[in-house]
This record gives sequence, C-alpha cells and structure tokens, in this order.
Amino acid sequence: MTTTLSTHFPAIDNTHLKSFAKLDIPARLLLGPGPSNADPAVLAAMDRQPIGHLDKAYLQLMDEVQELMRYAWQTDNRLTLPVSGTGSAAMEATLANTIEPGDKVLVCVNGYFGHRLMDMAGRYGAEVVSIHRPWGEVFNTSEIRAALETHRPAIMAIVHAETSTGVCQPMDGIGDLCREYECLLVLDTVTSLGGVPLFLDKWGVDLAYSCSQKGLSCPPGSSPFTMNERALTKLSNRRGKVANWYLDMSLLNNYWGQGRTYHHTAPVNMTYAIREALRLLSEEGLEARWQRHQEAAEHLYAGLEEMGLTCHVPREYRLHTLTTVRIPEGVDGKAVTAKLIDDHNMELGGGLGDLAGRVWRVGLMGYNARKENVDKFLSALKQVLTELK
Amino acid sequence: MTTTLSTHFPAIDNTHLKSFAKLDIPARLLLGPGPSNADPAVLAAMDRQPIGHLDKAYLQLMDEVQELMRYAWQTDNRLTLPVSGTGSAAMEATLANTIEPGDKVLVCVNGYFGHRLMDMAGRYGAEVVSIHRPWGEVFNTSEIRAALETHRPAIMAIVHAETSTGVCQPMDGIGDLCREYECLLVLDTVTSLGGVPLFLDKWGVDLAYSCSQKGLSCPPGSSPFTMNERALTKLSNRRGKVANWYLDMSLLNNYWGQGRTYHHTAPVNMTYAIREALRLLSEEGLEARWQRHQEAAEHLYAGLEEMGLTCHVPREYRLHTLTTVRIPEGVDGKAVTAKLIDDHNMELGGGLGDLAGRVWRVGLMGYNARKENVDKFLSALKQVLTELK
Repeated sequence: MTTTLSTHFPAIDNTHLKSFAKLDIPARLLLGPGPSNADPAVLAAMDRQPIGHLDKAYLQLMDEVQELMRYAWQTDNRLTLPVSGTGSAAMEATLANTIEPGDKVLVCVNGYFGHRLMDMAGRYGAEVVSIHRPWGEVFNTSEIRAALETHRPAIMAIVHAETSTGVCQPMDGIGDLCREYECLLVLDTVTSLGGVPLFLDKWGVDLAYSCSQKGLSCPPGSSPFTMNERALTKLSNRRGKVANWYLDMSLLNNYWGQGRTYHHTAPVNMTYAIREALRLLSEEGLEARWQRHQEAAEHLYAGLEEMGLTCHVPREYRLHTLTTVRIPEGVDGKAVTAKLIDDHNMELGGGLGDLAGRVWRVGLMGYNARKENVDKFLSALKQVLTELK
Repeated sequence: MTTTLSTHFPAIDNTHLKSFAKLDIPARLLLGPGPSNADPAVLAAMDRQPIGHLDKAYLQLMDEVQELMRYAWQTDNRLTLPVSGTGSAAMEATLANTIEPGDKVLVCVNGYFGHRLMDMAGRYGAEVVSIHRPWGEVFNTSEIRAALETHRPAIMAIVHAETSTGVCQPMDGIGDLCREYECLLVLDTVTSLGGVPLFLDKWGVDLAYSCSQKGLSCPPGSSPFTMNERALTKLSNRRGKVANWYLDMSLLNNYWGQGRTYHHTAPVNMTYAIREALRLLSEEGLEARWQRHQEAAEHLYAGLEEMGLTCHVPREYRLHTLTTVRIPEGVDGKAVTAKLIDDHNMELGGGLGDLAGRVWRVGLMGYNARKENVDKFLSALKQVLTELK
C-alpha cells in the first residue's frame, strides 16, 4: 500500500540536495587549547541509544554526574550540574543568574576570557568595571583589595586558568576578600578542572564553570556549573526573571533537584559521556590526576628548554594543562602549526589577542597529558622547525 | 621519577568520591514526544575522536551541515546553522536575536510551547501579547489578521507542530499576512523538521528553529536555526548588543560565515552526528521521508480506532510525528505508561498543561516512524490495558 501525501504541498526544491560522503575524520593528536582528545572509554559510553530525560534510569545518571562533579571541583554545593551547551554557555550561566540590571561587576582581566566576561556581563545590564594585568601575569590580593574597596561590586569574576595565556591564578585569600567586601566570587575553571589543583569550597568560590573537552577528556557539549547558597540567595531575591530562559537555574534547579520538572530536553548522550569522564577521574583520583598533568608539563618545559625555546609565563604561575611557548625570532608561527597538522596530524594553538603571532599554545589535558605525547610533539616540532629553516 | 605537587595545597576531601558502575543503559523504544531513538548510523558517526573547531576538516563539515539543513527546511537562507544546545536554545536564539526592549511580540498560543515563547520573549524585554486557541485546535488566518491589525507587532511567533497537543498548524497565508503587517514570522518546527512537509521560504517564514532528536533521529544537543535577510536586517539595525552572548548570531555569523572567527568551542561530536542525520535524510529524500511518517501515523490511527481509542486532534490537523490519544474513562494513564516502560521497555509521553492526565502522546519520529513500531506499540498497549483491568 502506498499513501499519497494528504495535503497538497508545493514541489520540493532540490537546489540544496547534495550527495556528501560518509563522515571521514582525520586522526588528530589535539595538543591545542581544546578540544583535546576524548578518552576512548568516554566515546564508547556516548555511543548508546538515548533514553528519555525523565526516565528513572536517566534521573539516576543525573544524580551520579552531580556527585562526581562535586568531587572533581571539591565542593559540597547542592546545585552542581552540567549545562546543556559548551563551556561558554556555563560561563554565561554564572553571570545570567546573578546579575540584575545595574549591578556592579568587577572583572579581573589578564587575557582573552576576562574580556569575554566583561562583554557577557554588560549584556545582562551590569555596570562593568575591570582591573588589568598584562597577558601572562597574575593578580595579587592587594590590587584586588584596592579594586574591591574602590568599586564595591556585587560580583567579582576572575579566571583561574587563562587558556589564552597559560597562567594559573593563585587563589589564596581572594575568597576571603570577596566575603569581606560582600560580593560574589565567580571563577573560570575551564582549563583547570580535572587538570590542576582546584578547591572551590576551601577557596570560598561562590560560582564556577568549566567545560568537558579539556581536563575531563570528553567531547564538548556538556559543561560543569556550580553555585553555592550565597549565590542562590542572590538568585532567589531577584526582582525579575533571569534574563535567559535556557540557562535559568531557578528552573533548572526544579529539574535537577527534587521536583524533576521538565525544563528542556537534555543532551542525553553528552550526559552519558561526561558521566564516564567524571567516573574515570574518580577512579584515577584527583591527586594522581593532578600529578600526571604536572609531570607531563614538566617534561614539556624541560624539552622546550633543551631546544632553546622559552615559555611565556614565569615557572611559578604556569598552568600545567596549557603552555604558551614564545615563537622564536624569524620563525613563521602559522607555517609551523600548518605543517604540524598537515604532516603530523597534530593540532597546536596559535596566540589570541595580545599574544597573537607571539606564542604557540600547547595543551596537555586529560587523556592527552602523557609524556609520550610530549615526546611526539617535541620530535615533530624539531622536524618542522628544521624543514622550515 | 615521581614529582610532588609543586605548590602546597589543602587535603583532598573524598566525601563525594563515589564508585559508580560503568554505564548501563536500558534498551528503550522511545515512542514519546522525544528524544526518539537515534539512527544507529548517526551514533556510529558521533563515536569518533573530536577535531579542532577551526580545523579545515571541521570547517568543511560545517559547510555541509548548513547545506543539508537548507534542503531539509527548504530554504535558501545563508544563515542556517546548528545552535550548540538542545531545541530550546535554538528557540531562544530566534527571540534573543530579533527582540529589542519594547518590541511588541505576538505569540499564537494553542499549547505548551506557545506559553514558553511568551515566557522567553518577556525575558528579552518584549511587550508580549497573545492570542489563544484551546489545546488541540489550530489558528485560522482571519483571527491572525485581526490580531496583527490590533497589535501591530514587530514579531509574530507560531508553532508549526505543537508537541504538547499533536496539532499541525496549516501555514497557507500566514507569511503573507506577516509581510502585509511588516512583522517577522518566527516558526517552531521542533516536531516537524524531517517528519512532515515544511517549506520555510515558500511559506514566508523569517526565522525558524528545530531540534535534532525527533525527525532527524540524532541525539539531542545540536539544534537547527535559520534566519533570512529580513530578520538579519532587524539584527544589524539593533541599537544594542544581543542580550545573550552564547546565541548572538552577529558573532556566530562570523564563525559560520567567511570570517571563521572563533566564538565558542563547538560541540564537535554533535556536529558529526547531525551531519550524518541530515545526510541520511537527503539520501532518503524529503518526499519519501514525509510519506514514511504519514504511513506510520495512519497505521497508528487505524490501530487505535480498532481498539476503540480516540485521537484528541481532528484528522485534518493531526501531526504525523506526534499523536495525542485520549485516555479512556476509568484508566489510570500513568499506570499504563509506567507498565509500558517497566514491562516492555517502551517510552510513551503523558499529557502536559491543559492535557495533563487526559492524553498519552505517541511519537513516531525519524528512525522510529515505521509500521513495525506501531504494531509493537499497539500490541504492548493492548496487553497492558488488559492486565490493568
């Protein structure tokens, strides 16, 4: 039996009907700023049929993801969950849920992501103020105190691990200052979660966000978000609705919490993936994980030094997950990254903003943070530099 | 050689360190309002290592996804791309990019998603007005004309396929009215794309959004969005920035268009998945795809009738992808859906809003839109209804 289409419709236009080949993805070693390679076990977990976002089996996975995320971040925050988007969505969620129009937001800017925080905060009606440090440097507590004293912001945002510079911001004392000045502390942990020591509660962080595709070795698309009771109080005292429906934590809280009220269809397979990524992290243990990243990074520093190359960031503030390497005088940085990917299937990052054209960015994150990858990279880089001479 | 962690850090708290088992997902047949089962070929495509979001191989995939999406939607719109989130994010993107504070937005509400459009539009500062129809009915052009005449909105939003009611809105004449009254037409095609006839350009639709997990048979997490030149003109004439950074099409346009400027890290594996889903759609062809959905739906209608069950929506407005079935007098609807999932691994949807407790929702979408699934469902439903008597 054939059925004819029941209503009369126009003819189908085949202008955009193209015959594309089946997917053919090159096998890259991803040593740039992210995404990094996924753990094969994570890809295997993702490759299942979806189930419903209100299925009791799925609700159990949600609880498990939340609990594993608390461990990874070292926080007891009840409201700890993956946002249904990539890291930038989780970043925006911290601001969207806390900023009310007219709130003063202080952003500490020493790289690309500080600038993005300023841009985002402005869109939610914040009065944005900022302090700045050159790209590659960190902030100290006295300059933060001075800025808090001057501006008396409702929220302060700072980047723990600046993916654009390879700097790891020391966190001692910053949370205490934000409490003293009664502002919320938002922390960017996109390139630190699952890679370098991170203690949200002990540091007095009120909101944090991260991504899945760096230290967690999971494809991008499900992004850790957390907020504590101080931040929830500001959310529940809002005069108006959160100016972003998709990221509204007062609604998401009802789905992830007791109510289980439908908000939006979850990216189910990404939840499978991040659960497995977090489970693998808990199996390895935070200390071993952090140590593995440090060892890989130190192996890289030694190899670069041996080649006569210089890291952009002073040793004590270097981020183990992401290293900025100065492009030597007379070398065409872009030609090197192009040759690395074409001849060696190896992705390296270029510089952003103030560091554009001045550095390469080498990521050793999650599954990729292994000495054998460092050796592969150093050997390929040597070869390419020789060939381009 | 072992390295000790270079800085002194607090002790790791193992309160949230739990030992969870490897992922174990029940094999469900998903016949609810979504997600539906993914095509196994789509899952296989997703299960690859990520590549960089600026990798030339990835940029080519992006172009292919855009072109295949134009075919699926029957549109020539240059700005046609997947949003990095689930369908609700693409929905919000249509409003966020077009609404400026004070704009009047007219929403046609005949189900749950009309209400959501109103909620979202309000968050972007719109003056929201609405017209209403009972859940299960459609709008006619004369009531739409009257509302446009009364309110003179800048934007009108209507749902093509109401997932909460199973109604398919006839579109003839609506685009012409929106042009006559100089407003943009936003169309919700979440449950129609890839399932029922859809002609964006011929219908004069200015912006549309959809999802991946229904007619496209792809897991949720990458969501079709499109806007035409009329809508782009409103975007480029804005006085202020789009009040949502993640979904700002003026920025995304630079990444998906000629500039290839980094905006946010794309959900790379979801792009693999949606490309394969769209490729499979183009292989099957729109006409065959729509016909397959219609045949499955008609097979369902006949089977339900034979069982003495009633569809909630009059035949001529029924949506082939989603059928609302009235729960018979004296039957506990929730007990039926619980037993279907527990004993038959089959997910069915309950009613939402005005239809809560009154209907079941049966989805036959994408890969699942096959007569054999209808037969499985009808046989399981018969058994469960008998057992619960």
